[in-house]
Order: sequence, then C-alpha cells, then structure tokens
Amino acid sequence: MLVNGQHFRTIWLAESMPVIYIIDQRFLPHKFIVRELHTSAEVVYAIKGMQVRGAGLIGATAGYGMYLATLEAAKSTSFGSYLREAATQIISARPTAVNPAWAVNRQMMAIDNEPTPEKKVLMAKQVAIDIANEDAASCKSIGKHGLTIIEEIARKKKGKAVNILTHCNAGWLAFVDYGSATGPIYEAIEKGINVHVWVDETRPRNQGAGLTAWEFLNQGVPHTVIADNMGGHLMQHGMVDLVMTGADRVTRGADVANKIGTYLKALAAYDNNIPFYVALPSSSFDWQILDGVNEIEIEERNADELRYMEGLCDGEIKKVMVLPEKSRALNYGFDVTPARLITGLITERGICDANEKGIRQLFPEK
Amino acid sequence: MLVNGQHFRTIWLAESMPVIYIIDQRFLPHKFIVRELHTSAEVVYAIKGMQVRGAGLIGATAGYGMYLATLEAAKSTSFGSYLREAATQIISARPTAVNPAWAVNRQMMAIDNEPTPEKKVLMAKQVAIDIANEDAASCKSIGKHGLTIIEEIARKKKGKAVNILTHCNAGWLAFVDYGSATGPIYEAIEKGINVHVWVDETRPRNQGAGLTAWEFLNQGVPHTVIADNMGGHLMQHGMVDLVMTGADRVTRGADVANKIGTYLKALAAYDNNIPFYVALPSSSFDWQILDGVNEIEIEERNADELRYMEGLCDGEIKKVMVLPEKSRALNYGFDVTPARLITGLITERGICDANEKGIRQLFPEK
Repeated sequence: MLVNGQHFRTIWLAESMPVIYIIDQRFLPHKFIVRELHTSAEVVYAIKGMQVRGAGLIGATAGYGMYLATLEAAKSTSFGSYLREAATQIISARPTAVNPAWAVNRQMMAIDNEPTPEKKVLMAKQVAIDIANEDAASCKSIGKHGLTIIEEIARKKKGKAVNILTHCNAGWLAFVDYGSATGPIYEAIEKGINVHVWVDETRPRNQGAGLTAWEFLNQGVPHTVIADNMGGHLMQHGMVDLVMTGADRVTRGADVANKIGTYLKALAAYDNNIPFYVALPSSSFDWQILDGVNEIEIEERNADELRYMEGLCDGEIKKVMVLPEKSRALNYGFDVTPARLITGLITERGICDANEKGIRQLFPEK
Repeated sequence: MLVNGQHFRTIWLAESMPVIYIIDQRFLPHKFIVRELHTSAEVVYAIKGMQVRGAGLIGATAGYGMYLATLEAAKSTSFGSYLREAATQIISARPTAVNPAWAVNRQMMAIDNEPTPEKKVLMAKQVAIDIANEDAASCKSIGKHGLTIIEEIARKKKGKAVNILTHCNAGWLAFVDYGSATGPIYEAIEKGINVHVWVDETRPRNQGAGLTAWEFLNQGVPHTVIADNMGGHLMQHGMVDLVMTGADRVTRGADVANKIGTYLKALAAYDNNIPFYVALPSSSFDWQILDGVNEIEIEERNADELRYMEGLCDGEIKKVMVLPEKSRALNYGFDVTPARLITGLITERGICDANEKGIRQLFPEK
C-alpha cells in the first residue's frame, strides 16, 4: 500500500543478500523507519519488541526468520538441533498468535524434505517468499469478499456514508499487504463507495491511533479516531453500520482472540443489532481448539505499556508517565470474543457463519 | 480524605474572606495544587476547564459560585439580572451534569426569599455550605449502604479478596468528601475487609489512572490500573466480583449517564452475571427524564483531549501528541447505560432496584 504516495510492503527480502527489510512500526505514525534484519535472533527480537506486529506479518516474519535460521544452521555443528532451537525461539516470541507457529511448522516440514543444508536453505528461502506472497493474496481476496458486505449496506444507505468501526490495526501493516479488516475498506474506496471509518485508538499500545489512522491518511480513507470507550455510545445512536476487526487466533468453533477490548465492542454491536464481522486469513485458524475463552492462553505484557504513553513533543518522540508511580498496573494483550456475538467470518475463501459448521463448509479438508 | 496523611475536602471556604479553595485536579496525580477562586467567573472557568469535576463537586462548586455571584450582584446595578446571568453561565459550564443546575436552582429559590442584598448574600453563603456538607453526608451514607453489598460477597469468598471494578473517578475527588462509588470501598477498608479494586484508566482524560489510583494510594486501598479495554476479559475469567461506578445523571427510569465507556462495562458485567451497581446521591437524579439514551444530551468535548496525552517526563508535566497530525478525532464525554443492565442503585437513602418503581420506593415524595 501507499506511504507518501510510494508503494510498500511491510516486509521484503533484499535482492542479492540474505537481508530482510521491515518497517519498524514502533515509530509510527510519527516516523517512517525501514530496518534491516540479519539474523534469526534479530527476527525474534523484532517480533517480541513489536517492531513488527499483526497476525499475518509476524507469520511472514517468522517464515523469513526460519530462512535466516537455515543459513545460520548450515554454519553450525548440528543443522537439526540449531534449527529446532531457532524454531522454538521464534514461536515463543508471541505465544498468543498462531501464525508464527504455523509458518515455522510449514518451514520445518519443507526443510525436512530436502537432503542437504544447501537445498534446505534454498527451500526455506522459497517457502518464506511463498508465505509472504500468499499472505498478500489472502488479504486481497478477503478484501473482495468483504466488499460485498459494504456494498449491500451502501445500497441501503443510498449514497450516505457507510460508517465502519474497527479496533486495533488489522490493516496492511499487520500483514504483508492490503490487510484483513481493512482489505474490504480499501476495495470499497477504490470502487468509489462513500465510506467513513471510526478508528478505536486501542490502548494501551495505540495501534488504532498510531497505525490504522496512519494507513488511512496515506490511502485517503475518511476516518475519525475515537477513544476505546466511545464505540458503544456511537452504536446506540445509529452512527455505526458495521464493525470489522481482525483476529490473532480463531478456534474451529469461531471464538476470536483479538486485541484486548474487541469483546466489549462485540457486546455493544450485538446489543444494538449491528453486524460484527471478523476478517482473517485461514492461517489464523487454530483447528485444535473449540472453546476460545477457556483454552486460549492470553499473553500478559509489560505493565509499562500502560504506565507510559509515547508521542510527539517538540518534534521528538517522548514518553510520559500517566499513572501514579506507586500504582500497580496489569496489561493483558488480547481477549476472546465468543462466536455467539459474531455475525460472520471473512476469509480468503469467502464469508461464513461464525460457528463450526460454517467454517467447515468453507474448509472441508480440515 | 487523606492526602499524604492529612485530611482534606475537595472544596472549602476561607474562614474570614469570600474566597473558595479547590484542589486543582488537572495536575493530579503528579502535583497536588490548591487554588483560590475569587469570582463567579472563576468558578465557571474552574468547572469548564476541569479544575474541578465530578457530579457532587461541581454541584458544590456551583453552590459556592452562586454565593460569590451574590457578592458581585450586590455591587452591580441590578441584583436580579446579574444573578440570573451568573446562574446561566454556571449551569452551562457542564451541560450533561444535573448537579450544577440543581445547586443553582436551590440557591435561586433561597436567595429569592430574602428581602435585601445583604440577607441574600448571607443566605447564599449558608446554602453553599449546606450543599457541601450535605454532599459529604450523602456520600458517607452511600458508603454505609454499599458496604452491605461488599460484605455479602466477602462472606461468600471467605477471606479471599473481593475484586471490584470501577470506571472513571467517582471518588472523594468527584464530591466534597468520601465519594459515591468509592464510599463503600473506603468503608470496607476501614472494616478490614480484603478488597482489591481494578481501576479503569478511563480515556481520554485518564481520571481512573490519574485520580482514582491517586486516591487509593493515599488511602491505602489495594488496586491495579487497567486499560479500559481489559475489563471484559477480567470478567470472563472470574477476576471481577462486582462493578461499581458513579453517575453524572440518572433518569427516573434508572438509565445512567456516566463517563464514556460505562455502558461497555455494564454490557460485559451483564454478559458474565456480575452485579453492576451505580452509586449516586439523589441530587444526581433527573426526575424529568425517563429514557436516558434518547433524552440526555451528551457533551462533545475538545478532540485535543484525545489527540494529546499528559504525563510526567523528566519531572515535568508534558503533553505528547499520540495521533497522526492530520487525523480527525471525536470526543464524547459520556454515555448512557440502560437501566436493564444495572443491578441496583446505591443512594444515601439505601439501595434500590434500577427501575422507576425501585426509585419511587426510596423517594416517594418525588
């Protein structure tokens, strides 16, 4: 998508060297910084430190990380044990998300099938590129399917703006390109549909205010940033036609783990009869789990994310402390929205009901 | 209540001069500043500028403001028209809240009954003092009644901590003393009950993180600050036994206008079968209105409250910009929680069901 009018992906491989480029998202929206990753350890650090974030992107990053790991393994005393250790490190960089594990496992299987370290490295490179390209293609496809939902509301509203609320960043910055929840919005904008998006700021890390709003500014999407507390009020007063969020992990029963606070918006949408859709590439399904509330482990993140707030002050990025110094704080990163509150799932294969039967109809092979 | 071990109220009259002292709450939790108000215009500015906030305190401030207005009116060419204009200004400083209007009207009636400007001034002074004392007494009484709810849960939990979630600041800083939603908590602490409070940070103005947490630190109440997004997750996982909030305005049908985001917490409490109580002095009832969602005007505040975040940086209070400069932001101050989501109301006369019948039983004269 566009940054100052120029096309970018969130992650890409250098043409002639084993170097990965990423957009360091910690400095957005204030500074646009591209960073090089040279080792699998740097990849782990980039995922853990939120330089990259978002389901699809950390999957793609994990894929590229495994490619770098094969290069390192080929120089080590034991290819197999080095690679397994690197794989464990990459998966554990974000335990709540399913995509890194999915990408690592796909790499492990492909690498296992190759006879020599040289061929393993070549295969890992190709798989990493494939994962990234498939992620972008999935989002493009999610966009096309989700567009039909927006078009239907636009027809009913006869030219008046379709108001969509979104939480966190499920935009192209969370994937390789296009985005999941934003995919349909970008398609609608391209089609000239009158769309306006309410962007939850998404405390404590402000991915909505910092990333989604920044994407929309660069892409020309009309939008308004709101506090996470405001969505319910807007829904009560007919100011929201549709809620679309992404997902970090979706059970086979359609329970959705997503950024903390998603559950509250789903409750409000349900209470006000507003459609609530979750957009995800099928790599975010966790086929092993049915009951998301009880079975998905929720990551507890550093309370300093809540204690300090980062922003621009006199042209510099500064941190201010917003809590009393001695008050304790707690910071869960995600919550689980039960399937009963979700209208439907938008995947690269189409839209389905948010239940096991609906998902099985789209993914009968699983 | 206590500030560094010393007892304070939020507002008080100088002993020998017509000067009002307030705690300037804009600098909490980082700096404790007491400010003097000398004129009714300064009172309007203090309410508008959030130097004072909270239902009870702005009521008491309005009461004192009317006393200052009578002093000014006595020096003007027309006592009556000066006072009416001052009254209008004071009421319009916070249109969503009912307490300033209530205090101003009570003053107007009392002042009207006095024959001379001198007597009008004396009466206004006494009424202002009465309003403040009654507010403190009401909160004390709310605390005693609400304590019974906490005691019952404590009995069931057999010594394990009673986890209470609260939103915004309905503490002593929002009143003259004790607080509404915090009243029962302070009573429980005094009784030695094992209580722990989840404090919503309450974006965009952070009254939870800044004020409620600061109160609890000074009063020795175990507490943990959380992002507004987290309450739903905690409730899903049995980590909340009770929700208690204050109210800015409650209809005679028990719909509750309170700080933006209260409605979302009420939905989550309802979804998880957790009791949700609203504590208020009866001065916050709006007897004229039944349907809060459709009839209460919700104040739209300056979007800069969302755009900038204030905190401590290198020992100084600084503002950082957290949004992209060109993104639009919208800032509603309050929302309305429908009575159907509320377990009960805690008033100075006791606890009642959250419906018209319940309220009438406690307030048959209305």
